[in-house]
Amino acid sequence: MTRYRLTLEYDGSAFKGWQRQANGFSVQEALEDAILNFSGEAVATVAAGRTDAGVHALGQVAHADIAKQTDADTVLKALNFHLKPHPVAVLDCVAVGDDFHARFGATGRRYLYRIANRRAPVTLDRGRVWHVPVALDVAAMQAAALRLIGHHDFSSFRAAGCQASSPVRTLDRLDVEREGDEVRIHAAARSFLYHQVRNMVGTLRLVGEGQWTVADVTRALQAADRAAGGPTAPPWGLYLAGVTY
Amino acid sequence: MTRYRLTLEYDGSAFKGWQRQANGFSVQEALEDAILNFSGEAVATVAAGRTDAGVHALGQVAHADIAKQTDADTVLKALNFHLKPHPVAVLDCVAVGDDFHARFGATGRRYLYRIANRRAPVTLDRGRVWHVPVALDVAAMQAAALRLIGHHDFSSFRAAGCQASSPVRTLDRLDVEREGDEVRIHAAARSFLYHQVRNMVGTLRLVGEGQWTVADVTRALQAADRAAGGPTAPPWGLYLAGVTY
Repeated sequence: MTRYRLTLEYDGSAFKGWQRQANGFSVQEALEDAILNFSGEAVATVAAGRTDAGVHALGQVAHADIAKQTDADTVLKALNFHLKPHPVAVLDCVAVGDDFHARFGATGRRYLYRIANRRAPVTLDRGRVWHVPVALDVAAMQAAALRLIGHHDFSSFRAAGCQASSPVRTLDRLDVEREGDEVRIHAAARSFLYHQVRNMVGTLRLVGEGQWTVADVTRALQAADRAAGGPTAPPWGLYLAGVTY
Repeated sequence: MTRYRLTLEYDGSAFKGWQRQANGFSVQEALEDAILNFSGEAVATVAAGRTDAGVHALGQVAHADIAKQTDADTVLKALNFHLKPHPVAVLDCVAVGDDFHARFGATGRRYLYRIANRRAPVTLDRGRVWHVPVALDVAAMQAAALRLIGHHDFSSFRAAGCQASSPVRTLDRLDVEREGDEVRIHAAARSFLYHQVRNMVGTLRLVGEGQWTVADVTRALQAADRAAGGPTAPPWGLYLAGVTY
């Protein structure tokens, strides 16, 4: 039995999220089907982040234990072959020790949120960006983002149903940059609360549109109450960009 | 009657190309349906480049004559509203003189060709890039591209069915650059022969993979015979990036 660390990229619009479920096709099911087709083994895979329906990944990390005698390069090629009908690919595959755990061993998670900030509807990037037609003030959004960085009680940005025992997290990075018509928000932390990134992005949008001031963001954070935070940005602009161990 | 110049973006994978036809939905039909819904007029639109099925546009230009009393900003908003079900958007709309002609008035056309140059299959960019798994030598491709720039008989890169009266064109730009896993080829000319960009890209790929030398490209050009040129790259990596007048 060998444990493999798999780095995955996927188009979340084709899946009901990472986690296997009864009513819809998940990334986990696609991956476990591919392993079954390759090795004949029914394997339970574990991922660093259980992305929601519609959320994409540029660098999700999962682990899988495979008994078949093989090697990492063969696993990568075989899984990509069997995954081919679905928009999910294994970018990297490494044999690791049994003590590696994709979820509990992760020391950092990075997310990217893409906003198409233009009047015209989105065409090529449909389902891959959030369309915000009102011109966003990126400098104001960055100033507001700085208020959220650090060790805080993030209850105001935590969705109902969050299973974390504590609402306290350390946000290491929250950067807002413009590239032409696109506004990109980069977030990094050891871990995030449920919907935390999307709730922070929805709040930064209010600042970018001038509906909220930077001080309003500080007040929202200090309230430690979801009702004080901004709305939830849609899943289709969100990308799990990478995981560190 | 006012003539409007429309700048269009579209996802070519949803259309049988620009041109209206009996057996499939075209960008032209989507646009003309939107005009009909807005103004009640059956208008024949003209585009700068009649992109093939699967080819995308970042900056296609078309013109349309509309009798309804209105203004450019209203036309832009109304067409985007009616186009909404389809992945095509009007980025810009300007009232122009009757002497403006989107096709015959164009003095420059720019194309972008995107290659995903990595082992893993494509997920998020499926239908938007050409997947080439063998590592490409971009420096060699650029050296070969320089052999094609200038005033030449491009018969070796001209598809059967090309309606141009002469195979001679002036290629102003052919640049190859790498951005991470992506190889981007930029081409610019007053006009191109049918499939010229895709045939040049297919040829540059041979150079990038080491199957052809730079000298082979010169020989192919000088042969002035399609049989001497490289294969045709697929449509889904190609973008009409912009048109100048």
